[in-house]
Amino acid sequence: MSVLDLETARSIIAGARAHGSSAGFKPLTVVVLDAGGHVIAVEREDGASMKRFEIGFGKAYGALSLGMGSRSIMARAEQQAFFVAAVTSAVGGTLVPVPGGVLVRDEGGDLLGAVGITGDTSDNDEAAAVAGIEGAGLTAQVD
Amino acid sequence: MSVLDLETARSIIAGARAHGSSAGFKPLTVVVLDAGGHVIAVEREDGASMKRFEIGFGKAYGALSLGMGSRSIMARAEQQAFFVAAVTSAVGGTLVPVPGGVLVRDEGGDLLGAVGITGDTSDNDEAAAVAGIEGAGLTAQVD
Amino acid sequence: MSVLDLETARSIIAGARAHGSSAGFKPLTVVVLDAGGHVIAVEREDGASMKRFEIGFGKAYGALSLGMGSRSIMARAEQQAFFVAAVTSAVGGTLVPVPGGVLVRDEGGDLLGAVGITGDTSDNDEAAAVAGIEGAGLTAQVD
Amino acid sequence: MSVLDLETARSIIAGARAHGSSAGFKPLTVVVLDAGGHVIAVEREDGASMKRFEIGFGKAYGALSLGMGSRSIMARAEQQAFFVAAVTSAVGGTLVPVPGGVLVRDEGGDLLGAVGITGDTSDNDEAAAVAGIEGAGLTAQVD
Repeated sequence: MSVLDLETARSIIAGARAHGSSAGFKPLTVVVLDAGGHVIAVEREDGASMKRFEIGFGKAYGALSLGMGSRSIMARAEQQAFFVAAVTSAVGGTLVPVPGGVLVRDEGGDLLGAVGITGDTSDNDEAAAVAGIEGAGLTAQVD
Repeated sequence: MSVLDLETARSIIAGARAHGSSAGFKPLTVVVLDAGGHVIAVEREDGASMKRFEIGFGKAYGALSLGMGSRSIMARAEQQAFFVAAVTSAVGGTLVPVPGGVLVRDEGGDLLGAVGITGDTSDNDEAAAVAGIEGAGLTAQVD
Repeated sequence: MSVLDLETARSIIAGARAHGSSAGFKPLTVVVLDAGGHVIAVEREDGASMKRFEIGFGKAYGALSLGMGSRSIMARAEQQAFFVAAVTSAVGGTLVPVPGGVLVRDEGGDLLGAVGITGDTSDNDEAAAVAGIEGAGLTAQVD
Repeated sequence: MSVLDLETARSIIAGARAHGSSAGFKPLTVVVLDAGGHVIAVEREDGASMKRFEIGFGKAYGALSLGMGSRSIMARAEQQAFFVAAVTSAVGGTLVPVPGGVLVRDEGGDLLGAVGITGDTSDNDEAAAVAGIEGAGLTAQVD
Protein backbone atom coordinates (compact mmCIF):
# COMPACT_ATOMS: atom_id res chain seq x y z
CA MET A 1 0.00 0.00 0.00
CA SER A 2 1.43 3.39 -0.93
CA VAL A 3 -1.42 5.56 0.31
CA LEU A 4 -3.80 5.11 3.20
CA ASP A 5 -7.26 4.53 1.75
CA LEU A 6 -10.54 5.31 3.48
CA GLU A 7 -11.46 1.71 4.21
CA THR A 8 -8.16 1.14 5.98
CA ALA A 9 -8.61 4.39 7.91
CA ARG A 10 -12.08 3.24 9.00
CA SER A 11 -10.63 -0.10 10.05
CA ILE A 12 -8.02 1.69 12.18
CA ILE A 13 -10.75 3.75 13.83
CA ALA A 14 -12.88 0.68 14.50
CA GLY A 15 -9.93 -1.16 16.06
CA ALA A 16 -8.95 1.79 18.22
CA ARG A 17 -12.49 2.28 19.45
CA ALA A 18 -12.91 -1.42 20.18
CA HIS A 19 -9.71 -1.32 22.22
CA GLY A 20 -10.93 1.68 24.18
CA SER A 21 -14.36 0.18 24.77
CA SER A 22 -13.06 -3.18 26.00
CA ALA A 23 -10.48 -1.48 28.23
CA GLY A 24 -13.06 0.86 29.74
CA PHE A 25 -11.48 4.08 28.43
CA LYS A 26 -13.37 7.35 28.47
CA PRO A 27 -14.94 8.44 25.15
CA LEU A 28 -12.26 8.65 22.46
CA THR A 29 -11.89 10.82 19.39
CA VAL A 30 -9.90 9.20 16.61
CA VAL A 31 -8.40 11.22 13.74
CA VAL A 32 -6.68 9.62 10.76
CA LEU A 33 -4.52 11.80 8.47
CA ASP A 34 -2.77 10.98 5.21
CA ALA A 35 0.99 11.42 4.82
CA GLY A 36 0.51 15.07 3.89
CA GLY A 37 -1.41 15.84 7.07
CA HIS A 38 -4.90 15.98 5.54
CA VAL A 39 -8.00 14.46 7.14
CA ILE A 40 -9.15 11.07 5.85
CA ALA A 41 -11.59 10.09 8.60
CA VAL A 42 -12.67 11.14 12.08
CA GLU A 43 -14.99 9.75 14.75
CA ARG A 44 -15.72 11.48 18.07
CA GLU A 45 -17.51 9.25 20.57
CA ASP A 46 -20.57 10.42 22.46
CA GLY A 47 -19.67 12.33 25.60
CA ALA A 48 -16.31 13.59 24.33
CA SER A 49 -15.80 17.32 24.83
CA MET A 50 -16.29 19.69 21.95
CA LYS A 51 -12.73 20.39 20.78
CA ARG A 52 -11.44 16.82 20.79
CA PHE A 53 -11.12 16.75 17.00
CA GLU A 54 -8.66 19.64 17.12
CA ILE A 55 -6.60 17.95 19.86
CA GLY A 56 -6.45 14.59 18.12
CA PHE A 57 -5.61 16.37 14.87
CA GLY A 58 -2.77 18.22 16.58
CA LYS A 59 -1.24 15.03 17.92
CA ALA A 60 -1.23 13.42 14.48
CA TYR A 61 -0.22 16.60 12.65
CA GLY A 62 2.69 17.21 14.97
CA ALA A 63 3.92 13.66 14.47
CA LEU A 64 3.89 14.12 10.70
CA SER A 65 5.39 17.61 10.88
CA LEU A 66 8.48 16.43 12.72
CA GLY A 67 8.62 12.81 11.55
CA MET A 68 8.32 11.25 15.01
CA GLY A 69 5.55 10.03 17.30
CA SER A 70 4.13 12.70 19.60
CA ARG A 71 5.68 10.84 22.57
CA SER A 72 9.09 11.99 21.32
CA ILE A 73 7.84 15.53 20.86
CA MET A 74 6.76 15.50 24.52
CA ALA A 75 10.26 14.39 25.50
CA ARG A 76 11.70 17.31 23.55
CA ALA A 77 9.17 19.66 25.16
CA GLU A 78 10.27 18.55 28.60
CA GLN A 79 13.84 19.52 27.70
CA GLN A 80 13.22 22.61 25.56
CA ALA A 81 9.66 23.82 26.05
CA PHE A 82 10.46 26.99 24.11
CA PHE A 83 11.48 24.99 21.04
CA VAL A 84 8.22 23.04 20.92
CA ALA A 85 6.22 26.20 21.54
CA ALA A 86 8.00 27.87 18.62
CA VAL A 87 7.49 24.93 16.27
CA THR A 88 3.83 24.75 17.27
CA SER A 89 3.49 28.32 16.17
CA ALA A 90 5.58 27.84 13.02
CA VAL A 91 3.37 25.02 11.78
CA GLY A 92 0.19 26.96 12.41
CA GLY A 93 -0.76 25.97 15.92
CA THR A 94 -1.66 22.40 15.12
CA LEU A 95 0.86 20.46 17.18
CA VAL A 96 -0.06 18.79 20.48
CA PRO A 97 3.06 17.37 22.16
CA VAL A 98 1.78 14.49 24.30
CA PRO A 99 1.45 10.76 23.49
CA GLY A 100 -1.39 9.68 21.26
CA GLY A 101 -0.05 10.85 17.88
CA VAL A 102 1.32 7.77 16.15
CA LEU A 103 2.87 7.42 12.69
CA VAL A 104 1.51 4.73 10.36
CA ARG A 105 3.95 2.85 8.15
CA ASP A 106 3.53 -0.06 5.75
CA GLU A 107 5.54 -3.28 5.90
CA GLY A 108 8.29 -1.65 3.81
CA GLY A 109 8.58 1.25 6.25
CA ASP A 110 7.02 3.84 3.95
CA LEU A 111 5.05 6.54 5.70
CA LEU A 112 1.31 6.32 5.06
CA GLY A 113 -0.06 8.83 7.55
CA ALA A 114 -0.76 9.25 11.24
CA VAL A 115 -3.40 8.59 13.86
CA GLY A 116 -4.23 11.02 16.66
CA ILE A 117 -6.35 9.94 19.62
CA THR A 118 -7.54 11.90 22.64
CA GLY A 119 -10.02 11.33 25.46
CA ASP A 120 -8.40 9.18 28.11
CA THR A 121 -4.87 9.42 29.53
CA SER A 122 -2.22 10.12 26.90
CA ASP A 123 -0.74 6.66 27.42
CA ASN A 124 -4.11 5.03 26.93
CA ASP A 125 -4.82 7.18 23.89
CA GLU A 126 -1.57 5.94 22.39
CA ALA A 127 -2.34 2.32 23.22
CA ALA A 128 -5.66 2.60 21.39
CA ALA A 129 -3.91 4.09 18.36
CA VAL A 130 -1.39 1.26 18.28
CA ALA A 131 -4.16 -1.33 18.59
CA GLY A 132 -6.02 0.21 15.69
CA ILE A 133 -2.98 0.47 13.43
CA GLU A 134 -1.68 -3.01 14.15
CA GLY A 135 -5.16 -4.49 13.85
CA ALA A 136 -5.20 -3.16 10.29
CA GLY A 137 -1.97 -5.00 9.52
CA LEU A 138 0.20 -1.87 9.57
CA THR A 139 3.13 -0.67 11.67
CA ALA A 140 2.81 1.91 14.46
CA GLN A 141 5.65 4.31 15.32
CA VAL A 142 5.09 5.89 18.73
CA ASP A 143 8.40 7.73 19.10
CA MET B 1 -33.35 13.10 19.92
CA SER B 2 -31.79 16.24 21.33
CA VAL B 3 -28.20 15.68 20.27
CA LEU B 4 -26.72 14.04 17.21
CA ASP B 5 -24.88 10.93 18.37
CA LEU B 6 -21.97 9.29 16.59
CA GLU B 7 -23.95 6.32 15.33
CA THR B 8 -26.48 8.62 13.69
CA ALA B 9 -23.68 10.69 12.20
CA ARG B 10 -22.13 7.53 10.77
CA SER B 11 -25.50 6.54 9.36
CA ILE B 12 -25.83 9.92 7.65
CA ILE B 13 -22.36 9.53 6.13
CA ALA B 14 -23.14 6.00 4.92
CA GLY B 15 -26.38 7.17 3.33
CA ALA B 16 -24.77 10.15 1.65
CA ARG B 17 -21.93 8.06 0.28
CA ALA B 18 -24.34 5.38 -0.98
CA HIS B 19 -26.32 8.09 -2.78
CA GLY B 20 -23.17 9.45 -4.40
CA SER B 21 -21.95 6.03 -5.38
CA SER B 22 -25.20 4.93 -6.98
CA ALA B 23 -25.56 8.27 -8.79
CA GLY B 24 -22.01 8.13 -10.14
CA PHE B 25 -20.78 11.23 -8.32
CA LYS B 26 -17.08 12.04 -8.02
CA PRO B 27 -15.40 11.13 -4.71
CA LEU B 28 -17.22 12.86 -1.85
CA THR B 29 -16.06 14.18 1.49
CA VAL B 30 -18.76 14.16 4.16
CA VAL B 31 -18.45 16.21 7.36
CA VAL B 32 -20.96 15.99 10.22
CA LEU B 33 -20.97 18.71 12.87
CA ASP B 34 -22.96 18.97 16.10
CA ALA B 35 -25.16 21.96 16.86
CA GLY B 36 -22.16 23.81 18.28
CA GLY B 37 -20.18 23.48 15.04
CA HIS B 38 -17.80 20.80 16.32
CA VAL B 39 -16.74 17.73 14.34
CA ILE B 40 -18.53 14.46 15.10
CA ALA B 41 -17.42 12.40 12.10
CA VAL B 42 -15.73 12.78 8.72
CA GLU B 43 -15.01 10.51 5.77
CA ARG B 44 -13.05 11.59 2.68
CA GLU B 45 -13.35 9.14 -0.22
CA ASP B 46 -10.29 7.93 -2.12
CA GLY B 47 -9.29 10.31 -4.91
CA ALA B 48 -10.74 13.44 -3.31
CA SER B 49 -8.30 16.35 -3.32
CA MET B 50 -6.40 17.22 -0.16
CA LYS B 51 -8.40 20.15 1.26
CA ARG B 52 -11.89 18.70 0.89
CA PHE B 53 -12.36 18.37 4.64
CA GLU B 54 -11.88 22.11 5.07
CA ILE B 55 -14.37 22.88 2.28
CA GLY B 56 -17.04 20.50 3.56
CA PHE B 57 -16.50 21.82 7.06
CA GLY B 58 -16.95 25.37 5.78
CA LYS B 59 -20.27 24.56 4.15
CA ALA B 60 -21.64 23.02 7.35
CA TYR B 61 -20.08 25.62 9.64
CA GLY B 62 -21.49 28.47 7.58
CA ALA B 63 -24.94 26.92 7.72
CA LEU B 64 -24.78 26.69 11.50
CA SER B 65 -23.20 30.15 11.83
CA LEU B 66 -26.10 31.88 10.10
CA GLY B 67 -28.89 29.38 10.81
CA MET B 68 -29.67 28.60 7.18
CA GLY B 69 -28.57 26.08 4.56
CA SER B 70 -25.54 27.14 2.54
CA ARG B 71 -27.80 27.46 -0.54
CA SER B 72 -29.32 30.53 1.09
CA ILE B 73 -25.90 31.92 1.91
CA MET B 74 -25.02 31.63 -1.79
CA ALA B 75 -28.16 33.60 -2.65
CA ARG B 76 -27.08 36.30 -0.22
CA ALA B 77 -23.55 36.24 -1.69
CA GLU B 78 -24.95 36.81 -5.17
CA GLN B 79 -26.68 39.94 -3.87
CA GLN B 80 -24.17 41.21 -1.31
CA ALA B 81 -20.81 39.54 -1.83
CA PHE B 82 -19.20 41.97 0.60
CA PHE B 83 -21.52 40.84 3.42
CA VAL B 84 -20.63 37.19 2.96
CA ALA B 85 -16.93 38.03 2.64
CA ALA B 86 -17.10 39.96 5.89
CA VAL B 87 -18.94 37.19 7.74
CA THR B 88 -16.50 34.62 6.36
CA SER B 89 -13.70 36.63 7.87
CA ALA B 90 -15.58 37.26 11.10
CA VAL B 91 -16.19 33.56 11.71
CA GLY B 92 -12.56 32.68 11.07
CA GLY B 93 -12.54 31.79 7.40
CA THR B 94 -14.65 28.68 7.70
CA LEU B 95 -17.73 29.60 5.72
CA VAL B 96 -18.18 28.31 2.18
CA PRO B 97 -21.29 29.85 0.57
CA VAL B 98 -22.40 27.29 -2.02
CA PRO B 99 -24.95 24.44 -1.72
CA GLY B 100 -23.92 21.33 0.17
CA GLY B 101 -24.15 22.64 3.72
CA VAL B 102 -27.43 21.35 5.14
CA LEU B 103 -28.93 21.78 8.61
CA VAL B 104 -30.12 18.68 10.47
CA ARG B 105 -33.30 18.89 12.55
CA ASP B 106 -35.32 16.30 14.46
CA GLU B 107 -39.05 15.69 13.99
CA GLY B 108 -39.87 18.48 16.43
CA GLY B 109 -37.74 20.96 14.47
CA ASP B 110 -34.94 21.17 17.01
CA LEU B 111 -31.50 21.79 15.52
CA LEU B 112 -29.14 18.82 15.89
CA GLY B 113 -26.22 19.87 13.69
CA ALA B 114 -25.22 20.16 10.04
CA VAL B 115 -23.76 18.13 7.20
CA GLY B 116 -21.27 19.54 4.69
CA ILE B 117 -20.45 17.67 1.49
CA THR B 118 -18.03 18.54 -1.32
CA GLY B 119 -16.60 16.72 -4.33
CA ASP B 120 -19.14 16.86 -7.15
CA THR B 121 -21.27 19.81 -8.29
CA SER B 122 -22.70 21.84 -5.43
CA ASP B 123 -26.23 20.69 -6.30
CA ASN B 124 -25.17 17.05 -6.23
CA ASP B 125 -23.27 17.56 -2.99
CA GLU B 126 -26.47 18.90 -1.45
CA ALA B 127 -28.57 16.02 -2.81
CA ALA B 128 -26.20 13.53 -1.17
CA ALA B 129 -26.46 15.38 2.13
CA VAL B 130 -30.27 15.36 2.00
CA ALA B 131 -30.28 11.64 1.16
CA GLY B 132 -28.04 10.90 4.12
CA ILE B 133 -30.04 12.98 6.57
CA GLU B 134 -33.46 11.72 5.50
CA GLY B 135 -32.20 8.14 5.36
CA ALA B 136 -31.39 8.50 9.05
CA GLY B 137 -34.98 9.55 9.78
CA LEU B 138 -34.16 13.23 10.28
CA THR B 139 -35.14 16.45 8.54
CA ALA B 140 -32.84 18.31 6.10
CA GLN B 141 -32.97 22.11 5.76
CA VAL B 142 -31.21 23.23 2.57
CA ASP B 143 -32.09 26.94 2.67
CA MET C 1 7.53 7.07 -9.32
CA SER C 2 5.14 7.33 -6.39
CA VAL C 3 6.60 10.44 -4.76
CA LEU C 4 8.30 13.45 -6.25
CA ASP C 5 11.94 13.36 -5.16
CA LEU C 6 14.21 16.37 -4.81
CA GLU C 7 16.28 15.64 -7.90
CA THR C 8 13.17 15.51 -10.06
CA ALA C 9 11.92 18.73 -8.47
CA ARG C 10 15.23 20.40 -9.26
CA SER C 11 15.01 19.12 -12.83
CA ILE C 12 11.53 20.65 -13.17
CA ILE C 13 12.84 23.98 -11.88
CA ALA C 14 15.80 23.92 -14.26
CA GLY C 15 13.54 23.17 -17.22
CA ALA C 16 11.05 25.87 -16.31
CA ARG C 17 13.79 28.46 -15.86
CA ALA C 18 15.43 27.49 -19.15
CA HIS C 19 12.10 27.93 -20.89
CA GLY C 20 11.63 31.35 -19.37
CA SER C 21 15.15 32.44 -20.16
CA SER C 22 15.03 31.38 -23.80
CA ALA C 23 11.59 32.94 -24.26
CA GLY C 24 12.67 36.23 -22.70
CA PHE C 25 10.30 36.07 -19.73
CA LYS C 26 10.71 38.33 -16.73
CA PRO C 27 12.39 36.81 -13.64
CA LEU C 28 10.48 33.73 -12.53
CA THR C 29 9.94 32.15 -9.14
CA VAL C 30 9.37 28.40 -9.28
CA VAL C 31 7.85 26.47 -6.36
CA VAL C 32 7.56 22.68 -6.31
CA LEU C 33 5.26 21.03 -3.75
CA ASP C 34 4.68 17.37 -2.91
CA ALA C 35 1.22 15.81 -3.15
CA GLY C 36 0.43 16.95 0.40
CA GLY C 37 1.19 20.59 -0.39
CA HIS C 38 4.58 20.78 1.32
CA VAL C 39 7.63 22.55 -0.14
CA ILE C 40 10.23 20.39 -1.86
CA ALA C 41 12.23 23.08 -3.69
CA VAL C 42 12.06 26.76 -4.59
CA GLU C 43 14.14 29.14 -6.71
CA ARG C 44 13.42 32.87 -7.06
CA GLU C 45 15.36 34.52 -9.87
CA ASP C 46 17.24 37.77 -9.36
CA GLY C 47 15.04 40.81 -9.80
CA ALA C 48 11.80 39.08 -8.80
CA SER C 49 9.80 41.01 -6.22
CA MET C 50 9.92 40.00 -2.59
CA LYS C 51 6.69 38.01 -2.12
CA ARG C 52 6.93 35.87 -5.25
CA PHE C 53 7.46 32.70 -3.24
CA GLU C 54 4.11 33.17 -1.52
CA ILE C 55 2.34 33.77 -4.85
CA GLY C 56 3.86 30.77 -6.56
CA PHE C 57 3.12 28.68 -3.49
CA GLY C 58 -0.51 29.79 -3.59
CA LYS C 59 -0.93 28.79 -7.20
CA ALA C 60 0.41 25.31 -6.55
CA TYR C 61 -1.34 24.92 -3.19
CA GLY C 62 -4.69 25.92 -4.65
CA ALA C 63 -4.31 23.40 -7.45
CA LEU C 64 -3.66 20.63 -4.93
CA SER C 65 -6.40 21.81 -2.58
CA LEU C 66 -9.12 21.52 -5.19
CA GLY C 67 -7.58 18.86 -7.46
CA MET C 68 -7.42 21.02 -10.59
CA GLY C 69 -4.96 23.36 -12.28
CA SER C 70 -5.20 26.97 -11.15
CA ARG C 71 -6.51 27.89 -14.64
CA SER C 72 -9.74 26.10 -13.73
CA ILE C 73 -9.91 27.85 -10.39
CA MET C 74 -9.68 31.18 -12.25
CA ALA C 75 -12.61 30.09 -14.43
CA ARG C 76 -14.62 29.34 -11.29
CA ALA C 77 -13.58 32.69 -9.80
CA GLU C 78 -14.87 34.50 -12.87
CA GLN C 79 -18.27 32.86 -12.31
CA GLN C 80 -18.45 32.81 -8.51
CA ALA C 81 -15.82 35.13 -7.09
CA PHE C 82 -17.35 34.75 -3.62
CA PHE C 83 -16.84 30.97 -3.71
CA VAL C 84 -13.15 31.24 -4.52
CA ALA C 85 -12.71 33.97 -1.91
CA ALA C 86 -14.33 31.73 0.69
CA VAL C 87 -12.25 28.69 -0.21
CA THR C 88 -9.11 30.81 -0.16
CA SER C 89 -9.95 31.73 3.38
CA ALA C 90 -10.99 28.19 4.35
CA VAL C 91 -7.65 26.72 3.25
CA GLY C 92 -5.67 29.37 5.11
CA GLY C 93 -5.19 32.09 2.55
CA THR C 94 -2.82 30.15 0.34
CA LEU C 95 -4.77 29.90 -2.90
CA VAL C 96 -4.00 32.11 -5.90
CA PRO C 97 -6.59 31.57 -8.65
CA VAL C 98 -4.78 32.45 -11.88
CA PRO C 99 -2.86 30.21 -14.34
CA GLY C 100 0.58 29.02 -13.32
CA GLY C 101 -0.38 26.37 -10.78
CA VAL C 102 -0.04 23.02 -12.53
CA LEU C 103 -0.57 19.50 -11.18
CA VAL C 104 2.18 16.93 -11.72
CA ARG C 105 1.18 13.35 -12.49
CA ASP C 106 3.19 10.26 -13.36
CA GLU C 107 2.57 8.12 -16.43
CA GLY C 108 -0.07 6.14 -14.56
CA GLY C 109 -1.97 9.32 -13.67
CA ASP C 110 -1.09 9.28 -9.98
CA LEU C 111 -0.72 12.69 -8.39
CA LEU C 112 2.87 13.51 -7.41
CA GLY C 113 2.60 17.20 -6.52
CA ALA C 114 2.28 20.60 -8.13
CA VAL C 115 4.37 23.42 -9.59
CA GLY C 116 3.57 27.09 -9.07
CA ILE C 117 5.26 29.77 -11.14
CA THR C 118 4.93 33.55 -11.04
CA GLY C 119 6.79 36.49 -12.55
CA ASP C 120 5.62 36.99 -16.13
CA THR C 121 2.04 36.85 -17.48
CA SER C 122 -0.04 34.06 -16.00
CA ASP C 123 -0.15 32.29 -19.37
CA ASN C 124 3.62 32.45 -19.68
CA ASP C 125 4.07 31.30 -16.09
CA GLU C 126 1.93 28.26 -16.91
CA ALA C 127 3.87 27.56 -20.10
CA ALA C 128 7.12 27.51 -18.15
CA ALA C 129 5.61 25.10 -15.62
CA VAL C 130 4.45 22.76 -18.35
CA ALA C 131 7.88 22.88 -20.00
CA GLY C 132 9.57 22.00 -16.75
CA ILE C 133 7.21 19.15 -15.91
CA GLU C 134 7.24 17.59 -19.37
CA GLY C 135 10.99 18.01 -19.64
CA ALA C 136 11.27 15.80 -16.55
CA GLY C 137 9.22 13.11 -18.26
CA LEU C 138 6.08 13.74 -16.27
CA THR C 139 2.53 14.84 -17.11
CA ALA C 140 1.25 18.39 -16.56
CA GLN C 141 -2.43 19.09 -15.75
CA VAL C 142 -3.25 22.76 -16.29
CA ASP C 143 -7.03 22.61 -15.73
CA MET D 1 28.22 41.88 -3.08
CA SER D 2 25.32 43.89 -1.71
CA VAL D 3 22.53 41.38 -2.32
CA LEU D 4 22.46 37.62 -2.20
CA ASP D 5 21.78 36.39 -5.73
CA LEU D 6 20.18 33.09 -6.64
CA GLU D 7 23.36 31.47 -7.88
CA THR D 8 25.10 32.20 -4.59
CA ALA D 9 22.09 30.89 -2.69
CA ARG D 10 22.20 27.69 -4.71
CA SER D 11 25.91 27.40 -4.00
CA ILE D 12 25.26 27.73 -0.27
CA ILE D 13 22.63 25.00 -0.47
CA ALA D 14 24.93 22.71 -2.43
CA GLY D 15 27.73 23.22 0.09
CA ALA D 16 25.49 22.63 3.07
CA ARG D 17 24.03 19.48 1.59
CA ALA D 18 27.49 18.17 0.67
CA HIS D 19 28.60 18.74 4.26
CA GLY D 20 25.59 16.86 5.60
CA SER D 21 25.99 14.02 3.17
CA SER D 22 29.69 13.49 3.87
CA ALA D 23 29.10 13.73 7.63
CA GLY D 24 26.26 11.23 7.54
CA PHE D 25 23.56 13.65 8.75
CA LYS D 26 19.89 12.83 8.45
CA PRO D 27 18.03 14.42 5.48
CA LEU D 28 18.39 18.19 5.63
CA THR D 29 16.15 21.02 4.55
CA VAL D 30 18.01 24.19 3.60
CA VAL D 31 16.27 27.56 3.35
CA VAL D 32 18.02 30.73 2.10
CA LEU D 33 16.41 34.11 2.76
CA ASP D 34 17.40 37.57 1.56
CA ALA D 35 18.07 40.42 3.98
CA GLY D 36 14.36 41.25 4.01
CA GLY D 37 13.41 37.77 5.14
CA HIS D 38 12.02 36.61 1.79
CA VAL D 39 12.68 33.19 0.25
CA ILE D 40 15.39 32.97 -2.40
CA ALA D 41 15.84 29.19 -2.58
CA VAL D 42 14.88 26.02 -0.73
CA GLU D 43 15.74 22.34 -1.01
CA ARG D 44 14.20 19.61 1.19
CA GLU D 45 16.01 16.29 0.93
CA ASP D 46 14.14 13.02 0.39
CA GLY D 47 12.90 11.52 3.63
CA ALA D 48 12.67 14.80 5.54
CA SER D 49 9.34 15.22 7.35
CA MET D 50 6.66 17.40 5.86
CA LYS D 51 7.00 20.67 7.80
CA ARG D 52 10.78 21.04 7.60
CA PHE D 53 10.55 24.05 5.31
CA GLU D 54 8.57 25.94 7.95
CA ILE D 55 11.10 25.04 10.67
CA GLY D 56 14.14 25.99 8.61
CA PHE D 57 12.42 29.19 7.57
CA GLY D 58 11.73 29.98 11.22
CA LYS D 59 15.37 29.59 12.20
CA ALA D 60 16.52 31.96 9.45
CA TYR D 61 13.63 34.38 9.90
CA GLY D 62 14.22 34.62 13.62
CA ALA D 63 17.90 35.35 13.04
CA LEU D 64 17.04 38.19 10.70
CA SER D 65 14.21 39.45 12.93
CA LEU D 66 16.53 39.97 15.90
CA GLY D 67 19.86 40.45 14.08
CA MET D 68 21.61 37.50 15.69
CA GLY D 69 22.16 33.84 14.92
CA SER D 70 19.45 31.54 16.28
CA ARG D 71 21.99 30.11 18.74
CA SER D 72 21.84 33.41 20.60
CA ILE D 73 18.06 33.38 20.53
CA MET D 74 18.17 29.97 22.20
CA ALA D 75 20.40 31.40 24.91
CA ARG D 76 17.89 34.17 25.48
CA ALA D 77 15.05 31.60 25.51
CA GLU D 78 16.82 29.64 28.21
CA GLN D 79 16.91 32.79 30.35
CA GLN D 80 13.63 34.44 29.40
CA ALA D 81 11.35 31.97 27.65
CA PHE D 82 8.48 34.45 27.89
CA PHE D 83 10.39 37.04 25.88
CA VAL D 84 11.08 34.66 23.03
CA ALA D 85 7.50 33.37 23.11
CA ALA D 86 6.24 36.93 22.84
CA VAL D 87 8.56 37.82 19.98
CA THR D 88 7.64 34.59 18.19
CA SER D 89 4.03 35.66 18.34
CA ALA D 90 4.81 39.25 17.43
CA VAL D 91 6.65 38.24 14.25
CA GLY D 92 3.85 35.94 13.15
CA GLY D 93 4.93 32.60 14.52
CA THR D 94 7.97 32.16 12.32
CA LEU D 95 10.80 32.20 14.80
CA VAL D 96 12.45 28.95 15.87
CA PRO D 97 14.98 29.56 18.66
CA VAL D 98 17.52 26.76 18.32
CA PRO D 99 20.84 26.64 16.42
CA GLY D 100 20.71 26.31 12.64
CA GLY D 101 19.67 29.85 11.72
CA VAL D 102 22.81 31.64 10.60
CA LEU D 103 23.28 35.20 9.28
CA VAL D 104 25.15 35.70 6.01
CA ARG D 105 27.49 38.69 5.69
CA ASP D 106 29.89 39.79 2.96
CA GLU D 107 33.57 40.57 3.54
CA GLY D 108 32.69 44.13 4.54
CA GLY D 109 30.26 42.91 7.19
CA ASP D 110 27.13 43.94 5.31
CA LEU D 111 24.12 41.72 5.93
CA LEU D 112 23.07 39.71 2.86
CA GLY D 113 20.53 37.31 4.32
CA ALA D 114 20.26 34.16 6.40
CA VAL D 115 20.34 30.40 6.10
CA GLY D 116 18.08 28.08 8.10
CA ILE D 117 18.73 24.34 8.26
CA THR D 118 16.82 21.56 10.01
CA GLY D 119 16.88 17.77 9.98
CA ASP D 120 19.69 16.55 12.22
CA THR D 121 20.70 17.84 15.66
CA SER D 122 20.59 21.61 15.96
CA ASP D 123 24.40 21.76 16.28
CA ASN D 124 24.84 19.71 13.11
CA ASP D 125 22.26 21.79 11.29
CA GLU D 126 24.29 24.87 12.16
CA ALA D 127 27.56 23.27 11.08
CA ALA D 128 26.07 22.51 7.67
CA ALA D 129 24.91 26.10 7.34
CA VAL D 130 28.35 27.45 8.17
CA ALA D 131 29.96 25.07 5.69
CA GLY D 132 27.62 26.22 2.94
CA ILE D 133 28.09 29.92 3.66
CA GLU D 134 31.88 29.78 3.97
CA GLY D 135 32.13 27.53 0.94
CA ALA D 136 30.52 30.33 -1.04
CA GLY D 137 33.18 32.78 0.15
CA LEU D 138 30.92 34.56 2.62
CA THR D 139 30.91 35.07 6.38
CA ALA D 140 28.66 33.10 8.76
CA GLN D 141 27.38 34.62 12.01
CA VAL D 142 26.05 31.93 14.33
CA ASP D 143 25.39 34.03 17.42
